[in-house]
Amino acid sequence: MTPPQRDDAERPVAALLAPDILDLLEEDPSSVALETEEMHPADLADVAEALPEDRLVAFLSALPTARAADVLEYLSEDLRSLALEAMSTRQAAALVTEMTPDDRADVLEELEEERAEEILQEIPAAARAETEALLQYEPDSAGGRMTTEFVAAAETLTVEEALRSVRAMARTERREALYTVYTTDAKGRLLGVLSLRELLAAPEGAHLSDVAWTEVHTVLPTAPQGDVVRLASDYDLVAVPVVDDDRRLLGVVTVDDVIDAIEEEQTEDVQKLGGMEALDEPYMQIGFLAMLKKRAGWLSILMVSEMFTTSALQHYDKELERAAVLTLFVPLVMSSGGNSGSQSTSLITRAMALDEVRLRDWWRVAVRELPSGMTLGAILGVIAIVRILLWQHFGFYDYTMQGRTPIGYVAGTIACALVGIVTFGSMTGSMLPFLLRRLGFDPASASAPFVATLVDVTGLIIYFNVALLFLRGTLL
Amino acid sequence: MTPPQRDDAERPVAALLAPDILDLLEEDPSSVALETEEMHPADLADVAEALPEDRLVAFLSALPTARAADVLEYLSEDLRSLALEAMSTRQAAALVTEMTPDDRADVLEELEEERAEEILQEIPAAARAETEALLQYEPDSAGGRMTTEFVAAAETLTVEEALRSVRAMARTERREALYTVYTTDAKGRLLGVLSLRELLAAPEGAHLSDVAWTEVHTVLPTAPQGDVVRLASDYDLVAVPVVDDDRRLLGVVTVDDVIDAIEEEQTEDVQKLGGMEALDEPYMQIGFLAMLKKRAGWLSILMVSEMFTTSALQHYDKELERAAVLTLFVPLVMSSGGNSGSQSTSLITRAMALDEVRLRDWWRVAVRELPSGMTLGAILGVIAIVRILLWQHFGFYDYTMQGRTPIGYVAGTIACALVGIVTFGSMTGSMLPFLLRRLGFDPASASAPFVATLVDVTGLIIYFNVALLFLRGTLL
Repeated sequence: MTPPQRDDAERPVAALLAPDILDLLEEDPSSVALETEEMHPADLADVAEALPEDRLVAFLSALPTARAADVLEYLSEDLRSLALEAMSTRQAAALVTEMTPDDRADVLEELEEERAEEILQEIPAAARAETEALLQYEPDSAGGRMTTEFVAAAETLTVEEALRSVRAMARTERREALYTVYTTDAKGRLLGVLSLRELLAAPEGAHLSDVAWTEVHTVLPTAPQGDVVRLASDYDLVAVPVVDDDRRLLGVVTVDDVIDAIEEEQTEDVQKLGGMEALDEPYMQIGFLAMLKKRAGWLSILMVSEMFTTSALQHYDKELERAAVLTLFVPLVMSSGGNSGSQSTSLITRAMALDEVRLRDWWRVAVRELPSGMTLGAILGVIAIVRILLWQHFGFYDYTMQGRTPIGYVAGTIACALVGIVTFGSMTGSMLPFLLRRLGFDPASASAPFVATLVDVTGLIIYFNVALLFLRGTLL
Repeated sequence: MTPPQRDDAERPVAALLAPDILDLLEEDPSSVALETEEMHPADLADVAEALPEDRLVAFLSALPTARAADVLEYLSEDLRSLALEAMSTRQAAALVTEMTPDDRADVLEELEEERAEEILQEIPAAARAETEALLQYEPDSAGGRMTTEFVAAAETLTVEEALRSVRAMARTERREALYTVYTTDAKGRLLGVLSLRELLAAPEGAHLSDVAWTEVHTVLPTAPQGDVVRLASDYDLVAVPVVDDDRRLLGVVTVDDVIDAIEEEQTEDVQKLGGMEALDEPYMQIGFLAMLKKRAGWLSILMVSEMFTTSALQHYDKELERAAVLTLFVPLVMSSGGNSGSQSTSLITRAMALDEVRLRDWWRVAVRELPSGMTLGAILGVIAIVRILLWQHFGFYDYTMQGRTPIGYVAGTIACALVGIVTFGSMTGSMLPFLLRRLGFDPASASAPFVATLVDVTGLIIYFNVALLFLRGTLL
């Protein structure tokens, strides 16, 4: 995100508090809960991360169970698994039971299967069934993100009855999707929706069916989390309902999970744009070999593709020998095409991710990118001409190869090649995401290095053909 | 985001409904409101966008004012400005008055200054003052994102009193940050916070001071929106409070605006990573010249920097003449460095944006990237050796320059150069974001093309020095 505002000076709480907490754990563990009572669980999790690993369980044990469960939710995956491995199965089960169903499923998913099973067996039957149901879904699907705690009310209820049940729920459930009330029929099928604000504002005595909205946007549990994100973002929802094929309400994805999903999707997109597989784990936590695997694949594919540049240069080796001056500008013209392609591909993949651009828009994009590429190429071409003429004029280098060709021919070759290559780069960079999507691939795979590689090979061919045009009869 | 799930077939509502709405507008405008009553304003906005531009004002006029204001919020910036220009000042002012204060400020900001001023003069004094205050802040700051409608209550109130005031507010205000209640002292200074859920769950008769949390995370109105995003994301907040230097509550940023901010920041980051300035407007809406300006600057800087490759090649022109075989692999070795650098820079800028990596972590990153780079370089080196030996063996090309040097020397040069350049690429790509942040720049400016350019120039020098080492005595 933007500038350096937050940094080392941030979150001093955790670093400052950790030693105090350590002392308290030694001397008077029972006071830890009271001392940290007003802190946000996320801050407590920061404190927990600043403690020595072998004190983590002691710290969690010193907190009330519900509170410890909250802290666990904010801990990093590594530490959370460590804690749940290190404590007794009963204690782990007690903590996990306190979590919301969706977090419970997430936490168990991270553990070794055997340990997860042990803990699951210790959880009360109802919570266990709920958790097992959630564990069936892919973690990055709507089902994997949803919680099964939500407010559903028969549409025949009055506003006051519904409010009473919301209030009862607020007292029993721990934390949840309370801010949206869904109305259902007798079979649990979703009929309508209203926000808690609308419920509070509704005239007393009214029935839910009078005040609820009947057009409800829903997703299936198998929908990718990107769909959930788009719904929440397009309709400003604080919860996205997940329904089965019969429109029975299965759960809701709450806005905090939507934000997590957005950040996860964005991380994946950025990493793919950088020319690698998505890591799926934080950079500082992923293992060395796991990271290498994610990077080496694309790097190798890109290099093997880039070998076509070697083949292209081999093909033109006679020309290179006669017009050695051409060699000097190979990196310059090639990289310019790659750079303009990188711009276009980042523009288009992002616009696609935001649904600003759809498949059918490819033609509108093409007619924007073509003149853009030509103009950008012309600008770079002018800069290149100036550079070449200046260097020649001041005698820094003799680009005419001992006067064998006019300097204008050399400058013209480079400038025209730049126009062609930058235009080609813009077109490739903007059209590749469409092509990938059309073929059923993720358009985000159109990474900057991928585009650059495509442009490098073709760019060389453009370059040498322009050179043949300009320099035939002098150098070639 | 992920795969192609949503596309042309999506949002059929808008395309299907638009003709019907057009007919209704002709025949019986008064029925439009009733016909569209249950639709989400975002869907109505889609319908509005599918209408001919000259029917837009008629459509908005056919809706109740509050409803039309909602639709206006979801319209694209272009169409919204168009509508507010086309309608009478009084109608525009009536619509804008119905909007939430933050959206009102946003909408006026997009208009021509003169038109905005005209509309502002027609707005009731209180709303005008509120809007003018918000207009002072930068649009992408916490102040620019906040709304001034929020629930603040004296901490001496009882739970029941607070609930009554929330309910009264739900009835009068249109839509806003009702789900978080802030407690304040007599001077309006922020003391505590509790969620509406906690308020609903609180025991009757309790005072707010008994149940509110006293540790509240806040931002100043001048804070960049990225700070707001991090708070909301780290603490799962549905509203982030904005306070002045005296901790007086000025407003709150609600979670729907947080999501907008996240998507905006991410778009900027992706565009910067692609090697350009952030567009600040949707790709399909930005003007041709405006887009060129955002792209041409960096493209020119990158090309001018890339000219150092020409200088480097000029420096080694004697070597190139004697060992022409070296030319063939220039694009290959250079691009591999750029690609590994692109991977590293996308990993690190993203980790920094998520606060997973801070300035002080540079050393830990360096000791990860160094062995990563070396290993990745070695993998590519082996592939290159295989390629060279195969081509030589099958006689596709003679890399020994008529036997003047052993093939192993050539392969060794390329492989060792790859190890060096890929390592250098990984280090540059990972350290540049730290350097930029340290110098007070946005680390996201460390774009893939920027890193590639840095690596290209140094890469050539590494390449020729490795070549001198291997080929001295044979070709050189």
